Amino acid sequence: MEESFPMTGGDGPYSYAKNSNPQKEAAETAKAMLVAAITENLDIKQNLCPVSNSFRIADFGCSTGPNTFIAIDTIIEAVSKTYQIKYSHDDSLTLPEFHVYFSDHVSNDFNFLFANLPKERRYFAASAPGSFHDRLFPRASLNFAYSSHALQWLSRVPRELGDSSSPAYNKGRIFYANAGKEVGEAYRHQHQEDMEKFLGARAEELAPGGLMVILMSGREDGTSPVQSSLAPLFEPLESSLVDMANEGLISHEKIDSFNLPIFSPSPEEIRRIVHKNGCFEILRLEEQPRKLRPLVTPEECRAGFESIIKSQFGDQIIEQLFNRYSKKIAVRSPISADDGSIAIGLFLMLKRNLE
Amino acid sequence: MEESFPMTGGDGPYSYAKNSNPQKEAAETAKAMLVAAITENLDIKQNLCPVSNSFRIADFGCSTGPNTFIAIDTIIEAVSKTYQIKYSHDDSLTLPEFHVYFSDHVSNDFNFLFANLPKERRYFAASAPGSFHDRLFPRASLNFAYSSHALQWLSRVPRELGDSSSPAYNKGRIFYANAGKEVGEAYRHQHQEDMEKFLGARAEELAPGGLMVILMSGREDGTSPVQSSLAPLFEPLESSLVDMANEGLISHEKIDSFNLPIFSPSPEEIRRIVHKNGCFEILRLEEQPRKLRPLVTPEECRAGFESIIKSQFGDQIIEQLFNRYSKKIAVRSPISADDGSIAIGLFLMLKRNLE
Repeated sequence: MEESFPMTGGDGPYSYAKNSNPQKEAAETAKAMLVAAITENLDIKQNLCPVSNSFRIADFGCSTGPNTFIAIDTIIEAVSKTYQIKYSHDDSLTLPEFHVYFSDHVSNDFNFLFANLPKERRYFAASAPGSFHDRLFPRASLNFAYSSHALQWLSRVPRELGDSSSPAYNKGRIFYANAGKEVGEAYRHQHQEDMEKFLGARAEELAPGGLMVILMSGREDGTSPVQSSLAPLFEPLESSLVDMANEGLISHEKIDSFNLPIFSPSPEEIRRIVHKNGCFEILRLEEQPRKLRPLVTPEECRAGFESIIKSQFGDQIIEQLFNRYSKKIAVRSPISADDGSIAIGLFLMLKRNLE
Repeated sequence: MEESFPMTGGDGPYSYAKNSNPQKEAAETAKAMLVAAITENLDIKQNLCPVSNSFRIADFGCSTGPNTFIAIDTIIEAVSKTYQIKYSHDDSLTLPEFHVYFSDHVSNDFNFLFANLPKERRYFAASAPGSFHDRLFPRASLNFAYSSHALQWLSRVPRELGDSSSPAYNKGRIFYANAGKEVGEAYRHQHQEDMEKFLGARAEELAPGGLMVILMSGREDGTSPVQSSLAPLFEPLESSLVDMANEGLISHEKIDSFNLPIFSPSPEEIRRIVHKNGCFEILRLEEQPRKLRPLVTPEECRAGFESIIKSQFGDQIIEQLFNRYSKKIAVRSPISADDGSIAIGLFLMLKRNLE
């Protein structure tokens, strides 16, 4: 059963729209790579429909903006530039019209997204509501697929993590860091299954020759999930919850049965999943430049996780939990990506094989 | 400057979703006509894209459901049936995948629409937010356009209706019924301009040979706007407001400057607009069967007009206004379409010319 973990909608103080700077910075870091990868690899003649000279782009896991608008502008700029460079001598090719699909869970705040569409835009805006683990578009109807910092979300928390009779029982933790091997494997297994579904759906939807760019957090090759992960980012949240349980404010059982549905794969894991799917060629699989990373602010943490924390622990703990969270991170330093214990940014570009 | 007049969103007691029975009945009356018109006129070979075997349908002015879901099912059923009848001997044609675009103003409650998408559906759902008086889709990208009881909404209230120095000043009224000729002409002129913009945009978006069906309220040929209109439907609202002004609860000036942005054209007016556009052939322009029509309930009236009434008169008058409205309609009889003074339902089917 697929679950949905919506970002906080609207534009309140804890909304995704106001608290998505880490994702924005990651996307900005990737901008130059994105433009270069598109201009090098885009083969326009292969996949455009002759009836409607339109170029269809979908952003999977767009959330509520503004990051998705920035990414779409970058993609359109790069595609347009490619036309100028490669096809200016070919009169039969004119710049297509762009049709952009913003896609996210049905529970995403699309009303907010639509109200904030850039007034001056070079595309027709559409949306495609639903889970990206399923089909969302007709066969061969997309020319470019994009997903930024969305595929780390699992479709569901593996059941065995909350099952006291399972070797993957994740007692006293909300994440796989510092857990037993079986916990990490349960996460990895779920991620693999989800990613296979995602690629299977996109393989049908992308026109032959179509490109897909995925930005996601990952780990270094040769590390196991429990060794190297997003752990330092989530440790303040976990220890705040554990403190509250130790003080009797929430039950330990609630923590034992709660797990963040987030996973960071290694490049090698991604490579295996793509090869297994068989419909894509890997054009790029690179690490983004590493840099010092500030800890996730309480507001950013709420934008991403408030809804799932509420549904597990109830509304009433939120203010106190994030007060504790604020105090914990106030005394810590930014995390350096060089120390190997923090997730790195992966840039993946795939090309849909010709049939 | 385009205005937006959203239906009341969500599923509260005064929402469009709970109070759109008149529109539903009109659409149900039209169902047989719709199916027959599609099976007779659909020429599938003309406009399908060979890269993606998909059939694209857009509902312009979809509001929040459920009527749009019913209409889309009818259209898909009819298109599928046409495939079976006409092309079962042709192995090169397989039933396309359906891509359905729900389109309405940006201020429409799309979150509610998405949450209520039918679980079992034979199409990929998308939306296209924006005014249907402008372009919303790439050139030649649609195979079928539909609009039900949306095109009676004007893009704005003609300014001169609220201008005391104009011959079209509509003092003491909120609609053109029983007004001077100039008031009716101001409405007609705005409707013509809007309809021209709508057709101009759809002419670009529909693939050659593509079909468009429009259901709308209209008048008989040979009548002028002020003679024959939706007047009986809006009279209880107007007289409730006038009563409140006479009692000093609202100002007369607020009524003088308020006008419902609704218009019912005659078939002859529609024919002229379509011919002027020049890109469509009229396949059908028919009156739907007339029948007794109950008065608009207070809830239905609120679903359609609460937002514009609030923005003119303020929130505080709403409850009292609709209490008065309820009392007025309680003592009246259903309206018979045969008496000529009430809007009739028009069924228009257009075919996009081949280039």
